[in-house]
Amino acid sequence: MEETFDIAIIGTGPAGLEAAITAKVRNKNIILFGSKELSLKVNKVDHPIMNYLGMPKATGKEMMETFHRQIDDLGISITEKKVVSVYAMGDFFTLQLSDNSMVNASAVILAAGVVAGSPYPGEEKFLGRGVSYCATCDAPLYKGKNVAVIAGSAKEEKEAAFLSEVVNHVDYFPLYKGEPSFNDNVAVHHEKPAEILGRMKAEQLKTDQNTYDADCVFVLREAQFPGQLVPGLATEGNAVKVDLQMKTNLPGLFAAGDITGQPYQYIKAAGQGNVAALSAVNYLASKK
Amino acid sequence: MEETFDIAIIGTGPAGLEAAITAKVRNKNIILFGSKELSLKVNKVDHPIMNYLGMPKATGKEMMETFHRQIDDLGISITEKKVVSVYAMGDFFTLQLSDNSMVNASAVILAAGVVAGSPYPGEEKFLGRGVSYCATCDAPLYKGKNVAVIAGSAKEEKEAAFLSEVVNHVDYFPLYKGEPSFNDNVAVHHEKPAEILGRMKAEQLKTDQNTYDADCVFVLREAQFPGQLVPGLATEGNAVKVDLQMKTNLPGLFAAGDITGQPYQYIKAAGQGNVAALSAVNYLASKK
Repeated sequence: MEETFDIAIIGTGPAGLEAAITAKVRNKNIILFGSKELSLKVNKVDHPIMNYLGMPKATGKEMMETFHRQIDDLGISITEKKVVSVYAMGDFFTLQLSDNSMVNASAVILAAGVVAGSPYPGEEKFLGRGVSYCATCDAPLYKGKNVAVIAGSAKEEKEAAFLSEVVNHVDYFPLYKGEPSFNDNVAVHHEKPAEILGRMKAEQLKTDQNTYDADCVFVLREAQFPGQLVPGLATEGNAVKVDLQMKTNLPGLFAAGDITGQPYQYIKAAGQGNVAALSAVNYLASKK
Repeated sequence: MEETFDIAIIGTGPAGLEAAITAKVRNKNIILFGSKELSLKVNKVDHPIMNYLGMPKATGKEMMETFHRQIDDLGISITEKKVVSVYAMGDFFTLQLSDNSMVNASAVILAAGVVAGSPYPGEEKFLGRGVSYCATCDAPLYKGKNVAVIAGSAKEEKEAAFLSEVVNHVDYFPLYKGEPSFNDNVAVHHEKPAEILGRMKAEQLKTDQNTYDADCVFVLREAQFPGQLVPGLATEGNAVKVDLQMKTNLPGLFAAGDITGQPYQYIKAAGQGNVAALSAVNYLASKK
């Protein structure tokens, strides 16, 4: 059976990190999903951040170094796997990971940040019917077929390379700059995906220049729209609906930080992470 | 005419301080009410605080020293006057201070912390009719009369001394340990106030041991219950009702930190202070 954690925390920006330290201090068995670089967005800020109380004039990089030291001191480790889906199973949650493994947790805190943009036309309609967010999970379904990959970052090249070993042909659409090299059965197109077309299931990816046949379109973004990550989650645009205790509409599922909407601020994210963790702790206590 | 500030911030715990630095960074003309010791409650914490992201293992005292340096660097000063009442005047707010002076502000952020306990029976009924929260303001009304003073801390001894110069007799009820010395017309009673009695107005203070005649009972707490501080403010128990943007039911009035309810946490307070300040900034922009 899969390991069951008290609390799974998704995201290693200020919200996820603060949730992790608060939960850890409260002796919860946690798993923290994210990047060992913590937050690329914060790391890139090289001017002093003026409004984080307690860290006068820290740059984003300095902030992240302090945060890293703090979680290391508490023995918190980061699991660098992408969470593809979170399923509410009643009494617990099952997280499907990008390597197709599963993790169970009694409570979940979403702190994965805000996702810019909106789904492609057709994406939501065909999700599970020719649209997938997880190459590793769904590659076997498309053995010998033709697929398209929309890749939000260079990290997805690994996924496309894996797909190319299984499927017949991959059309690869990088949304970033770069000239990745692949097996011969991968064609790289610097075109802008526009729409996913089909009748009963996805059949084609239309770009600003061409239309490509695809038995499946893998949409591999840096982070997923919250409503796609967690089926049944109440959202408002790209933001998760929460109350002041950071509760979502799903019991045991909490959210914190940019994913809950504006303002996008580090200290606000950290504060909400703290509240989400304490609410999760209370939720766990109430189940006993 | 009184000076008008963009934003008045009440409280110098983490919520008020973060609100102040955020508002200052946004170039707002602010006035910050509180104590130059910032937060007595935080200052007293001499064990490391484990869950404030960015300040690993800081004690309360170290935290406050860092906070002080940060506001000093931004040129933020603290006005050590107690705010007795906040009146919504339509387009702005008038703050009545304990020295009976007034300050106007276009927006107000309440970050005064939580007030333990509840009003004494009779206190709310007779407020303005023999119950007062401001000795300096209301002393002249009781010239030659007998008054009672319920004092939350030794800071109020100054107020009682002032009253004793004006009124006939003061019965002084310290809620703290100590043996204050006063003029001969002040009697100090180590008794527990229980109820304020009267018919049309307050006439007596009943304690756990005796009943004292009083033309006015001055109730001088460290901080006031929010609903008493701001007439018309929606509250739930001792907590101010806010939404996720830290808006109260009164346009232009925001709240942050412990005053908004549990959990009572530093980083949560700071995060809410940040949001309250940005909401106040947006509110000011919307009025132009």
